[in-house]
Amino acid sequence: MKAVGIIVEYNPFHNGHYHHLIQSKKIANADVVIAVMSGHFLQRGEPAIVSKWARTKMALQSGVDLVFELPFAFSSQNADVFANGAVSILDALGCHSLCFGSEEGEIETFLKTYEWLEKRYDEFQKQLKTAISEGNSYPKAMSIAFQHVADGQNHLLDLTQPNNILGFQYVKAIFQQNSSMKPLTIPRIGAGYHDQTYRHAHIASATSVRKELFNDFRSQNVKNYLPESSYNILMTYHQEYSTFHDWETYFPFLKYAVLSKSRQELNDIYEMDEGLENRIVEQMKKASSFQEFLSCLKTKRYTWTRLQRLCVYLLTNTKKKEMEHVLKTKKAPYLRLLGMSKKGRQYLQAIKKDLPLPLVSKISSFPESMLAMDLKATSIYALALKEPLATHFIKQEYANPPLRSGLS
Amino acid sequence: MKAVGIIVEYNPFHNGHYHHLIQSKKIANADVVIAVMSGHFLQRGEPAIVSKWARTKMALQSGVDLVFELPFAFSSQNADVFANGAVSILDALGCHSLCFGSEEGEIETFLKTYEWLEKRYDEFQKQLKTAISEGNSYPKAMSIAFQHVADGQNHLLDLTQPNNILGFQYVKAIFQQNSSMKPLTIPRIGAGYHDQTYRHAHIASATSVRKELFNDFRSQNVKNYLPESSYNILMTYHQEYSTFHDWETYFPFLKYAVLSKSRQELNDIYEMDEGLENRIVEQMKKASSFQEFLSCLKTKRYTWTRLQRLCVYLLTNTKKKEMEHVLKTKKAPYLRLLGMSKKGRQYLQAIKKDLPLPLVSKISSFPESMLAMDLKATSIYALALKEPLATHFIKQEYANPPLRSGLS
Repeated sequence: MKAVGIIVEYNPFHNGHYHHLIQSKKIANADVVIAVMSGHFLQRGEPAIVSKWARTKMALQSGVDLVFELPFAFSSQNADVFANGAVSILDALGCHSLCFGSEEGEIETFLKTYEWLEKRYDEFQKQLKTAISEGNSYPKAMSIAFQHVADGQNHLLDLTQPNNILGFQYVKAIFQQNSSMKPLTIPRIGAGYHDQTYRHAHIASATSVRKELFNDFRSQNVKNYLPESSYNILMTYHQEYSTFHDWETYFPFLKYAVLSKSRQELNDIYEMDEGLENRIVEQMKKASSFQEFLSCLKTKRYTWTRLQRLCVYLLTNTKKKEMEHVLKTKKAPYLRLLGMSKKGRQYLQAIKKDLPLPLVSKISSFPESMLAMDLKATSIYALALKEPLATHFIKQEYANPPLRSGLS
Repeated sequence: MKAVGIIVEYNPFHNGHYHHLIQSKKIANADVVIAVMSGHFLQRGEPAIVSKWARTKMALQSGVDLVFELPFAFSSQNADVFANGAVSILDALGCHSLCFGSEEGEIETFLKTYEWLEKRYDEFQKQLKTAISEGNSYPKAMSIAFQHVADGQNHLLDLTQPNNILGFQYVKAIFQQNSSMKPLTIPRIGAGYHDQTYRHAHIASATSVRKELFNDFRSQNVKNYLPESSYNILMTYHQEYSTFHDWETYFPFLKYAVLSKSRQELNDIYEMDEGLENRIVEQMKKASSFQEFLSCLKTKRYTWTRLQRLCVYLLTNTKKKEMEHVLKTKKAPYLRLLGMSKKGRQYLQAIKKDLPLPLVSKISSFPESMLAMDLKATSIYALALKEPLATHFIKQEYANPPLRSGLS
C-alpha cells in the first residue's frame, strides 16, 4: 500500500481541506492518506477551536486514514521546527510522498529555490543576521534576506506567502532529514490564508470560519464552507462543552500565569527575550482582554504570531531548558495515533514491525518528556471548560484509545 | 490618647465583632481602637468573602479608628506566626493594650498558663516532637503535648479551643517581643467558632453568616447578625462585582497552578512536604471541585486547615525560599494603612514622628519584598472577577489612598 502524508491543523476541517485531501491522494496515486495534525495548540500560537479528538473525527469522516498528533514541542513553533517535527513523523510512517497546498502550486519552483538558497547559504545567513539586528521581526528578516540573495531571479518562490513558506520548510526538512519522501504540491484555491471574508463559492479560510462561529456558534452560513460531518461535529462539541476555544477563553489563566510568576520564572519561559518580561507584566496589569494585551505588546520586532506563541509557552509554563532538552534533534521520538479508518488500520498492521519509533496508542504509562508536554497542554486546554467537564476531558486523554471510523 | 489594639479578619464584620470592639475599648479605657486585619487571604487558609477595602469600610463604619493590613506573609499562617506579625504591628503603633476574645475570658488564666509552659519548655517540645512523629497533625500534637505537661492542673487554659489557642499565641508574642502592651481578654458570647447554625439571638459565627450568604447572596436572615452598615457593604460589593469569594471561585486557577507546575516547582512551594506534591497532582486530575479535592487529600496528619493554607501558597505561587527570606524575623517591616476615622487620623498625626516602621499609605513605589507578596495576593484575589472588573480591581490597589470615615 502506498501512503501520502499531509500536514494539517483542521481548525476546523473545511472544504478547502477536503480539496487538499482528495487532490493529494490523487496526484500521489496513494492508497491511504496519513495526516500529522497539531494537538491543542497550533502553529500560529493559538488554542484549537475544538479538541484534537473532535478534529480527528472530522478528518476520519472526510477520508483521512490515519491521524497522528504533532507533539506540542513542534506545534506552536516557527515554520522550520514545525516542519521538521511533522516531516519526521510522516517519514517514520513510511509515506512515499508528502503533499502540501501552496500559493505557488508548482513543486519545481520549491526545488529550484531550495537549491539556489543552499548554494548561497552563508550569504543568506549574513543578510538574515543584518536584517534582524536592524530590528526586523524574524519573518520580515527572512523575506529581506531572501530578496537580497534571490537577486531579482523571477523563477524563484514568492516567500512572502505563508503557505509557500511552510511548504518550503517541508521541502527543506525532507532534504535535511534525508527522507525518501517525494515532495508534492497543489495550488490552494479560493481563499487567502488570512482572509476573513468569503471569496470562492464553497471555499473559505479557516480564519473566516472561526470568526463566523465565534460570532454565532450555530451559524448557518458556515455550512456552505464545511463538509456536513465537520459542521455536525462542531455543533455536537459546542452542545457537550458549551464553548469553542480561543485566546479570550484562556485570558484569565494567562493573566494569572503572568501575575503569579516571579521575574526569574518569566525569564525562564521559552522564547522570552531578556527584558520582555517587564513589559509583559506591565501590560498585563492594564489589559482586560487578550486582544488588548497583544495590541499593546506588539512592535515591529515582535509580530502578533511570535507573541501568541510566547503566550502559549506562558500559559503552558514551558521553559527554555525543557524545550532545549526535548528538541535536541528536531525529530519526534514517538508516534501518537489519534484515529484510523479501516484501511488505515490495515496499513498500520502492515508496517508495524518496521516502525523506527514507538507507536503510542494508549498513553497510560509511556514516560517520555515530550509526551508529558502534550499531556500538560491537554490539561490546560481543558480548563476552558466548566467543571466537571474539565476533569472529564482530562481523564479522557488518558483513557481514550485511538478513534476508529468504519469508512473507506 | 490611649489606643487598644485588636486582631481581626472581619469575614464579614458581624454583631459578635461589634461586641468585641465595644468591650475592648471599654475595658482598655481607650480613646481609639486600632485593628490589624488580614488582607485577602485569611488565617484558616481561605480567600476573604469580600475585598480588604470593603472589610475596612465595615470596620470604620462600626467604630474602628485605624485599620492596618496584616501582611500576606503572616495572614495565612499557623497561630504562632500569625500572632507575631499582628502583635509586632500593634506594638509599633504604640497600643497600650491588646484585647482579644476567647472562650476562657480571664486573662489571668492565659498568664498562668504561659508561665507554666515556659518553665516546662523542654519537656513540652519533647512531647510535641513525639506526638508529631506518631503521625498527629500539628494542632493535635500541641494539644497532646500540652495535656501531658499540664499534668491534670485544672487552673490552666483549655488549649483545645480555637480562640484560646490564638489568644495564647498573642500573649506569648507580647512577652517574646518584649512589648509593653497589656494583654486583655473578653469572653466570646453566643456562638462557637465553627458553628454553622445560629444560637444567640443576634450573634452568629462568621462561618454561618458566610454559609448563608453563599446560599442566598441577598439573604434577609443574615441581617439579624450583622450591623446594617456591614450588610449594605456586602450587598454593594455583590452588586458591583457579581460575586462573593470562596475557594470554589478560585478552584480553576488552583487546578491550573497544580497542573502547569513541574514536580520541582510544586516541591518549592511553601509548606509542601516531600512527596505530598505527587498526591496533590493525582487528586487534582480527578477532582472537579475544591471540596472534593480537599476531602480526598485530608488525612490524620494533614488537617483541612493546613491543606487550605498550602492551597493558598499554591495559588499565590509562594515559595519556601521567599517565605524564609521575608520571615527572618517574625515581625512586620512596614505599616500598611487601609483606613482611618477622624480620631484615628489625629492619633496617627500624634505618633507619626515616633513610628519605628515606615508608614505605607500609598504603595506606588515602596520596594519591599513582603509588600510585593501582598500585591501579588491582591492581583490573584482579583481574578475571581470577570473582566474588566479584575483589571480595575488590580489598578485600584495601586491607586487607592487609605479609606476615610467621618464618623466619631
